[in-house]
Amino acid sequence: MTLMTITLNPALDLTTRLEALALGEVNLVSEGNLRAAGKGINVAMVLKDLGREVGLSGWLGADNQQSFVSLFAERGLADHFVRVAGSTRINVKISEQSGRVTDLNLPGLHISDEAVEALEAAIDELTPHADWFVLAGSLPKGVEPAYCARLITLLKAKGKKVIFDCSGAALKAGLRAAPTLVKPNLEELEQWAERPIKTLKDQAECARALQADGIEHVVVSNGAEGLIWFGPDGIWQAVPPRMQVVSTVGAGDSLVAGLAHGLSLGWAPEQTLRLATAVSALAVSQVAVGFSDIRVLTPLLEQVRVQRLDTAQFDSMEPSGDAQ
Amino acid sequence: MTLMTITLNPALDLTTRLEALALGEVNLVSEGNLRAAGKGINVAMVLKDLGREVGLSGWLGADNQQSFVSLFAERGLADHFVRVAGSTRINVKISEQSGRVTDLNLPGLHISDEAVEALEAAIDELTPHADWFVLAGSLPKGVEPAYCARLITLLKAKGKKVIFDCSGAALKAGLRAAPTLVKPNLEELEQWAERPIKTLKDQAECARALQADGIEHVVVSNGAEGLIWFGPDGIWQAVPPRMQVVSTVGAGDSLVAGLAHGLSLGWAPEQTLRLATAVSALAVSQVAVGFSDIRVLTPLLEQVRVQRLDTAQFDSMEPSGDAQ
Repeated sequence: MTLMTITLNPALDLTTRLEALALGEVNLVSEGNLRAAGKGINVAMVLKDLGREVGLSGWLGADNQQSFVSLFAERGLADHFVRVAGSTRINVKISEQSGRVTDLNLPGLHISDEAVEALEAAIDELTPHADWFVLAGSLPKGVEPAYCARLITLLKAKGKKVIFDCSGAALKAGLRAAPTLVKPNLEELEQWAERPIKTLKDQAECARALQADGIEHVVVSNGAEGLIWFGPDGIWQAVPPRMQVVSTVGAGDSLVAGLAHGLSLGWAPEQTLRLATAVSALAVSQVAVGFSDIRVLTPLLEQVRVQRLDTAQFDSMEPSGDAQ
Repeated sequence: MTLMTITLNPALDLTTRLEALALGEVNLVSEGNLRAAGKGINVAMVLKDLGREVGLSGWLGADNQQSFVSLFAERGLADHFVRVAGSTRINVKISEQSGRVTDLNLPGLHISDEAVEALEAAIDELTPHADWFVLAGSLPKGVEPAYCARLITLLKAKGKKVIFDCSGAALKAGLRAAPTLVKPNLEELEQWAERPIKTLKDQAECARALQADGIEHVVVSNGAEGLIWFGPDGIWQAVPPRMQVVSTVGAGDSLVAGLAHGLSLGWAPEQTLRLATAVSALAVSQVAVGFSDIRVLTPLLEQVRVQRLDTAQFDSMEPSGDAQ
């Protein structure tokens, strides 16, 4: 079975590293490259590395698509992106030795009604070939937050499962259409709840509210602290092994890929959660997204701690001071 | 007859404009685009706009060639670039409202011996189709300054005319192979001469030394001050009309294109110089390189002042205080 990921707002990331940025001068950068990026694309790369057949869709600028096309070919991802006139946005990231990071985010595509229709036609053609869809990332200009809800509704009407990973207004709007699984981090959950989420009990309250609205699975991630999965059959907590953090880029996407992998294969929640946590832990320890040899996961899978929580135990838990 | 331009070190220019750069933050850039650039490519675009058939060669990174390929197709330029594994360098230019410009120059291709051989084979194939070659711009990693001399020598051995526009060590090395025409600006001439060039007399001394080495034409440019052409049949001075300066990018390349156009058609020096000066003046008044309608040149051609200087008159001239 094929999985599909939908990335509505991919980006070309131009990451540059230098000692210190000299303003008003010519800075020679020893390291730097332009990389095709996007949350759904990252999810697809990790799924592929887990051995799955993955298709991609979304909107891509026709004028600067080469890095994307090369990446898809290299990683063996089926490219169903709709091409739109213009250029996909470019994000320049300037990392200095001091740890200071300056971002320059350039404007990207403007999505027309025709491009919206073309995307829906593409997804329509894809639905017979996939049962699980991942909708991840931000929205380009011309697309309202409510569009996430529309896509989720369209897919659910065809009996598809939808894993949803957006933030801000798009998250809020999409949740109204009750995706199968949502994976907010604590900050995103706070944005949705419009209140601070301090304790595990706060998380449980949010999760219950979302589940009452028809969202089966709520997975709340909290970086190195781990994550909690509120599912229809129970609540599980996973804590990753302590990793040497190299880059957190793609960690959340790796988590989503792990969840999509286990869920779509009908794995037990513990097994799915263990895999997702291990894949995410691996992601923070490296710059690249995905892995070339699945065996690197083995020691991490053993080191992930997964436990089932029961509601009573959960409600009596101490406030988690770190969970901010 | 076809003209050829050779660009050994093209670049992708990512120009961004913003109010003020906030360090350590996410800056949203309202204007910005990735543009295929390179001195020889600019020269070719202007020649094409002047009505000429133009071919291009040099080295281009295979991994990010799309902007170049699109530009060549759009402008009708015959693409004979040799593809090299890797990415063409990217130069990020951050322009702030204050006028401060910060550049981030990323590393580019490394040229192997095979790539050098492939370029020479490409040029070899092209020589029957063109009599005039323009060699312009800097050198990529792995290519020594002396390589400019080698290319000029190769082309001259086949009876070709070579217009040469480089700077620094590449200029110095290439001049030893006596190109047909060299177009240094004052700063480049000073680098070559290793002494300040203050007066027109200083320029004449340099030009005479270069001509003694077999370089027929020495054209010294000095921005808005105009330029002086030391040719085998005399010395001419041209002063451009006063322009509203929008961008000096491509002004020197437009000048070279004008010179290549007139010379290759056997025009009188005055006529060639007038055209080259007008095309260059037009270039500073706009962001784009080239022009869509040749009639925009007509008023500028009339406004350029060209005069012949004689050596005696020249030697007695006052020092030109501005010529620094």
